[in-house]
Amino acid sequence: MSIKPSIPKGTRDYHPNLVSKRNYIIQKLKDNFIRFGYHEIQTPSFEKSNILKGNYGQEGDRLIFNILNSGEKVKKANINSLKDDNLSEFVNSISDKALRYDLTVPLARYVSQYQNEIKFPFKRFQIQNVWRADRPQKGRFQEFTQCDADVIGSDSILNEIEMINIYAKSLKDLGLKNLELKINHRAILNSISKKIELNSQFKKFMIILDKIDKIGQENVIKELIESLSLKDKYIEDLKFIFNSKSNSDILEFIEKQYIIDEDSKIALGQLKTIKDFFDLNSYDHINISFDLSLARGLDYYTGVIFEISSNNHKEIGSIGGGGRYNDLTKRFSAQNLSGIGISFGLERIFYILENDSLFPDSIDQQNEILVLNFGIEYIKKLDHVINYFRKSNNLTIYPDESKIIKQFSYADHNKFRSVLIFGKDEDENNIFKIKNMESGIEKIINITNFKEV
Amino acid sequence: MSIKPSIPKGTRDYHPNLVSKRNYIIQKLKDNFIRFGYHEIQTPSFEKSNILKGNYGQEGDRLIFNILNSGEKVKKANINSLKDDNLSEFVNSISDKALRYDLTVPLARYVSQYQNEIKFPFKRFQIQNVWRADRPQKGRFQEFTQCDADVIGSDSILNEIEMINIYAKSLKDLGLKNLELKINHRAILNSISKKIELNSQFKKFMIILDKIDKIGQENVIKELIESLSLKDKYIEDLKFIFNSKSNSDILEFIEKQYIIDEDSKIALGQLKTIKDFFDLNSYDHINISFDLSLARGLDYYTGVIFEISSNNHKEIGSIGGGGRYNDLTKRFSAQNLSGIGISFGLERIFYILENDSLFPDSIDQQNEILVLNFGIEYIKKLDHVINYFRKSNNLTIYPDESKIIKQFSYADHNKFRSVLIFGKDEDENNIFKIKNMESGIEKIINITNFKEV
Repeated sequence: MSIKPSIPKGTRDYHPNLVSKRNYIIQKLKDNFIRFGYHEIQTPSFEKSNILKGNYGQEGDRLIFNILNSGEKVKKANINSLKDDNLSEFVNSISDKALRYDLTVPLARYVSQYQNEIKFPFKRFQIQNVWRADRPQKGRFQEFTQCDADVIGSDSILNEIEMINIYAKSLKDLGLKNLELKINHRAILNSISKKIELNSQFKKFMIILDKIDKIGQENVIKELIESLSLKDKYIEDLKFIFNSKSNSDILEFIEKQYIIDEDSKIALGQLKTIKDFFDLNSYDHINISFDLSLARGLDYYTGVIFEISSNNHKEIGSIGGGGRYNDLTKRFSAQNLSGIGISFGLERIFYILENDSLFPDSIDQQNEILVLNFGIEYIKKLDHVINYFRKSNNLTIYPDESKIIKQFSYADHNKFRSVLIFGKDEDENNIFKIKNMESGIEKIINITNFKEV
Repeated sequence: MSIKPSIPKGTRDYHPNLVSKRNYIIQKLKDNFIRFGYHEIQTPSFEKSNILKGNYGQEGDRLIFNILNSGEKVKKANINSLKDDNLSEFVNSISDKALRYDLTVPLARYVSQYQNEIKFPFKRFQIQNVWRADRPQKGRFQEFTQCDADVIGSDSILNEIEMINIYAKSLKDLGLKNLELKINHRAILNSISKKIELNSQFKKFMIILDKIDKIGQENVIKELIESLSLKDKYIEDLKFIFNSKSNSDILEFIEKQYIIDEDSKIALGQLKTIKDFFDLNSYDHINISFDLSLARGLDYYTGVIFEISSNNHKEIGSIGGGGRYNDLTKRFSAQNLSGIGISFGLERIFYILENDSLFPDSIDQQNEILVLNFGIEYIKKLDHVINYFRKSNNLTIYPDESKIIKQFSYADHNKFRSVLIFGKDEDENNIFKIKNMESGIEKIINITNFKEV
């Protein structure tokens, strides 16, 4: 019986050219992380289920891929829970680990586990795959690569500033222009929610606010009225918040309206420090602005939050985001280690580079020299020549003694820059030829002299 | 309730120094694969279960990690099959995909799926994780990285020769010495099994033969007698096979005794070609020999098989292996695409480099410059200096305004090469200092002039 070769919905094969392009982006990010003093760690693809679950909200937890216990252990399936429609209990009875959903919770687990060996502040980056059982749809995959940089164990606002610098430098190295980096603070959002009497529904308020880029201001306000019974008298306030454009105006506005406790006072101070820093050290390719409507969905953020997007490609949404999370290690009763992190959206950055032709041409011209095959005895005699070229080029030996026209067609199809010719005639004349595939020009090289190179 | 931070048995966290060392090995392998004209592909971490299962023998299939169907789909659990103790049917009712067990079957699926787009011969390498639900034990993990290079769509013996060259060049680049590369051929093993009347139990014969490095000749023969009823009269024959040392002897012996059909005749010709090639193009650091006791467990091999190990580290077994598999794409009714591939054992290569101190020192000295923090205003003024150094060094800003002694202790603990000092005094004198952490020598640099660099 023949099996149809196919992959699960929501997954992808990466063909050579795609891998090269992704590696190009990943390498630029890595280089920058390293230059900023971050160290790479890697954690297992699966974690114990109790470590992962309970961090991402109900919706997030639902999207975690559970791994079935192996061998005889599946016999412990709790069949009654299935009959009672208690699916999560049923799943727990046959699965105790799951594929990681992001890299932040594994990091919190990691620093808690090794807290006595790590000298804090700990700066790490991590570029690994994560898995989400999302309904597969165009451009949304169940397996994708996250690129994260985080600092654990320091409250200093210099970390927030550094995150902005990492975004700016890395994306500049990739050639991106006209970027927009938006900043907000959870403590300010908290004050706002209190002022407009929605603080008892803070999470829901954030989730609705987070939709502003997709559905627009009017619809956000409509949804706040319908779902959370926002009072009419606060609508104008919200509109002002949404429409403030200058960073100074916004800070002034916060100062007047939303400093209601110690937390919001500290938050304002932090935003001011960020503003002052970047007034002096500003970038051409990236506009840094405060945006009080920025919410970011994930439960665990507690302080400054970021989001970065491309003004030239608003259609794809943000290309990165992050923020400060104070309490993520609390679950492990680790000393409360404040953390801050950012993430790069590899797929979306790829989309921009591809669309704006920002990948270097060399990525498309991977194949350099093809050695035509006139028989194994000629390949054997070429050994020193092959070794010489392999020092600085990639060199492919055509393995079969096929017709030369077929070999040339292979060179052509795979865009080889040149072919190396060494057969009977060349051997008798003590030469080999290198033919440039684009110009057709042949270079004749003496193989006897070549030995002495 | 506090959760204990820990990872599932059989998995590992990779700390920064470990990641750097692994990356060092991976990069050397990649560089070689690319120089030999191989292209990188990546396939999804999980595949459809029917693609994976049925390739690795019963024991292998048992070690595949199944992924639970998500959401409501677990309701389709076939409870009766569980009651009937039909575990595989139960698993199939709630799981239709699984984590990949190796990179070879995904490759067979890949080339079958895209056979109309690929111009064969197709040379690819793949460095990705695989998962096996093995009983966790020292040095054996459930998640590990495979590094494979394969050629699909060419029968030429030049591919076998190339695989040997890739092993030799890559491991030389990593500094390995005194290596042993053993070669055998499944068709010859087939002849042998016929001659000693074990061909009806060929798979079992191979599995027992494969244990020779672990349990020794005597015990292999004992097991063949006990489990497969090997006749006494063949014992001497087997001993000769096990003890032949010279490549010429072995070829002569095969020629006399084991050429029983067209397949074994071709096999002998192939082994002769390999011998002739490497008589001329030999390596100092690797001994290439035929070994008729080499079997390699996996079902799918059909032609030449390899195994490479270190004579200095016999305790760890092979550091790589591979061979030719003719029929792997048949299952997908793809035109019969012959394949050959080799694999590098990353963990074991790592073990040797670590034990023999073959990692470059630079890997342990990752941290270059630490900027001491005397307050954000000084960091701000240093911006151009920081940017300058980041062009060719990694530079970490200590984020907190902690006591200087604490910051120095951080520099010391994390082995920073030097610290950059710029505080009130330095600012007033228009200088900054760079202190070498090992020698203690301070270099004083004029910050005004520095702007003009």
